[in-house]
Amino acid sequence: MNDEMGMRARKASVILAASDSRTRDEALKNAASLILERKDLILAENEIDLENARSSGMSQAFLDRLLLNEQRLRSISEGILSIRELEDPLGKTISDEIRPNGIRIVKKTVPLGVIAVIFESRPNVSADSAALCIKSGNAVILRGGKEAILSNTAITGCIRDALSMSGLPSDCVQLIADTTRDSAVRLMHANDYIDVLIPRGGPGLIKAIKKEASVPVIETGAGTCQTYIDKDADPDMAMKIIVNAKTSRPSVCNALECLLVHEDIAQSFLPELYDVMSGYNVIIKGDEVSMKIIPSVLPAAQDDWGKEYDDLVMALRIVSSTDEAIAYIEQYGTHHSDCIVTENEEEALRFMDAVDSAAVYWNASTRFTDGGEFGFGAEIGISTQKLHARGPLGLRELCSYKYFIYGKGQIR
Amino acid sequence: MNDEMGMRARKASVILAASDSRTRDEALKNAASLILERKDLILAENEIDLENARSSGMSQAFLDRLLLNEQRLRSISEGILSIRELEDPLGKTISDEIRPNGIRIVKKTVPLGVIAVIFESRPNVSADSAALCIKSGNAVILRGGKEAILSNTAITGCIRDALSMSGLPSDCVQLIADTTRDSAVRLMHANDYIDVLIPRGGPGLIKAIKKEASVPVIETGAGTCQTYIDKDADPDMAMKIIVNAKTSRPSVCNALECLLVHEDIAQSFLPELYDVMSGYNVIIKGDEVSMKIIPSVLPAAQDDWGKEYDDLVMALRIVSSTDEAIAYIEQYGTHHSDCIVTENEEEALRFMDAVDSAAVYWNASTRFTDGGEFGFGAEIGISTQKLHARGPLGLRELCSYKYFIYGKGQIR
Repeated sequence: MNDEMGMRARKASVILAASDSRTRDEALKNAASLILERKDLILAENEIDLENARSSGMSQAFLDRLLLNEQRLRSISEGILSIRELEDPLGKTISDEIRPNGIRIVKKTVPLGVIAVIFESRPNVSADSAALCIKSGNAVILRGGKEAILSNTAITGCIRDALSMSGLPSDCVQLIADTTRDSAVRLMHANDYIDVLIPRGGPGLIKAIKKEASVPVIETGAGTCQTYIDKDADPDMAMKIIVNAKTSRPSVCNALECLLVHEDIAQSFLPELYDVMSGYNVIIKGDEVSMKIIPSVLPAAQDDWGKEYDDLVMALRIVSSTDEAIAYIEQYGTHHSDCIVTENEEEALRFMDAVDSAAVYWNASTRFTDGGEFGFGAEIGISTQKLHARGPLGLRELCSYKYFIYGKGQIR
Repeated sequence: MNDEMGMRARKASVILAASDSRTRDEALKNAASLILERKDLILAENEIDLENARSSGMSQAFLDRLLLNEQRLRSISEGILSIRELEDPLGKTISDEIRPNGIRIVKKTVPLGVIAVIFESRPNVSADSAALCIKSGNAVILRGGKEAILSNTAITGCIRDALSMSGLPSDCVQLIADTTRDSAVRLMHANDYIDVLIPRGGPGLIKAIKKEASVPVIETGAGTCQTYIDKDADPDMAMKIIVNAKTSRPSVCNALECLLVHEDIAQSFLPELYDVMSGYNVIIKGDEVSMKIIPSVLPAAQDDWGKEYDDLVMALRIVSSTDEAIAYIEQYGTHHSDCIVTENEEEALRFMDAVDSAAVYWNASTRFTDGGEFGFGAEIGISTQKLHARGPLGLRELCSYKYFIYGKGQIR
């Protein structure tokens, strides 16, 4: 990241913001095609990235995130086309009012401007972020992990060419070639050029950026989600929700990390829970009370409370009331998604009001906190902060607004 | 600012968010009364602040901003009562949808949480900010300038007592007693406690905070506003708008700073402009072209372009087209409020689309960019950034939202 790159992004963003949606959609269509047309090139570059990562001893999980193949490229291409199909978020009237003095004030959606995205090793993030930004009229500066640099360069090359083919500046999408820490730090302080920085990656990356950046940041993806089984829960429903929230995709941010169970039903519920979760190979780390009921659970250490396992591991804690569950979530949660399972409406509503999270659930799996499930079509992340946007960030959340004021010579 | 203060604010914010609007309104009513009841104490403390400021040689303008008197206290008290009268911004349904799988997703407004306000010498800002935060269910940590510390302590003391009288935690409003630079810097990095920091003061303060802070900031008040007189402008309307935008209150952020005039009407418009503005004691700093038409204007230096005079001074520049005016505003403006005066609708709409400011005007004074004029009732500042909120920040802009999800055992 340098000033020249920032100035190019600003300039491109002005042209992109003024473009019509058909042009932006055409650029996305061209990008989806070019990625398939150039698949041999992209896969060859990806192979070099993989080779380098292997020789630096990266883990199998890391290599899998980095890997591209024909199927993954097809899915990247289809992802771009599905973003193209979404409704244009720009120019939507939020309010339209004539004031007593006769001036008319119209509030309409506009792009944010220049968005920066810092991400890790998954090369599909470059295509996905670029497509969401183009669709919402925002220029984007991408800064991916050094292990994926050749793959990212090949993919963003397709998108930049697609922009040119549609008459838009290729600088609407720029990839930072320099993958040193310095380049990321400069990006975090490029206040003259960046309207918002969105980190996409693990908790370490997000924490570091939040601490360092002076540009506006939307914090995403830190997800320690709790589910609380109230004494008035339907045990079958509770079990179904727990299994889904913990096991359907344990590595994602809306997965269950800590289960809270009311003491009145612990005696009857826990043994079955242990059997069912063992069947799914889930390791349970319990507090002392739960260990008395099911001695075979592992003991939880202090740092298990509030931990994001992202794995088939789950913390378990017995609470004596809904209030204790609420207090636990306030202390250890990350304000992402939390759930109460109960047949008691009053208790459910009280829990939902008190828990300060982006999404609060009554009798449903926290796995639903997702742009697709919310009907946004796609998302660039899930915000766990309260400023600007909370929960899934779709196209609408990549917009700002502007006041258009029509007068006839009014003065104040 | 220290951790203990942050924790107290968080704790208070949870209780305040769960309170009903009648309780918050009662606290505001009590605060308005206490400020009048304790006027002797407040004025005595203010007199000491003034005395200290005088002995440290502060300017007359500074002393005037610091000064409280009976009339100003009445106006502070009335300001609190008028905020109390506004509609409760919390719990408003933004959307309510049942998804194909039967889960119901309701999006509702909630408080932001804990707001920090850093301000300078005007003690009314403490009352005003506290009242807006209480009304919107947010706890607030105030950090005012050292010159007003006794006045601020007396005023916030009234508000803290009013909160207690209404059964709310007095820690919903805290004033930082330590007015060293260190305490402000700690506040700017209190990411665990602060949801948003709003600076209220001059451009120097705002720039320093934007550079330093790691907590989310809403940048406010940097206002270099332009008005562009197109060749198809009605000259009488143009003059009326210019006079109002420049002279009605030159020290505020929505005042005109640079006038752009189309070359085709410069010859006829400028001499009258000079006469009228001289009548209002406005000093004009013009570019070379304008000096050829009216040789008595002062020459503008490079740093006059984009300057916020906050005074009866105005830059003047002749442009050859609307596009040149747009390009000037993009280069030198602060994205606050900009206006085109013209009878040509097509040109007006093009200008309004292209200029990337919070408020774009056609044939009206930029002085209307104001929470009151926009119908918000009150404002905590005017945002010139695009993240979260743009333009006047009213109660609605002091809110976030939350998703309430009602299921019947749905899993994904």
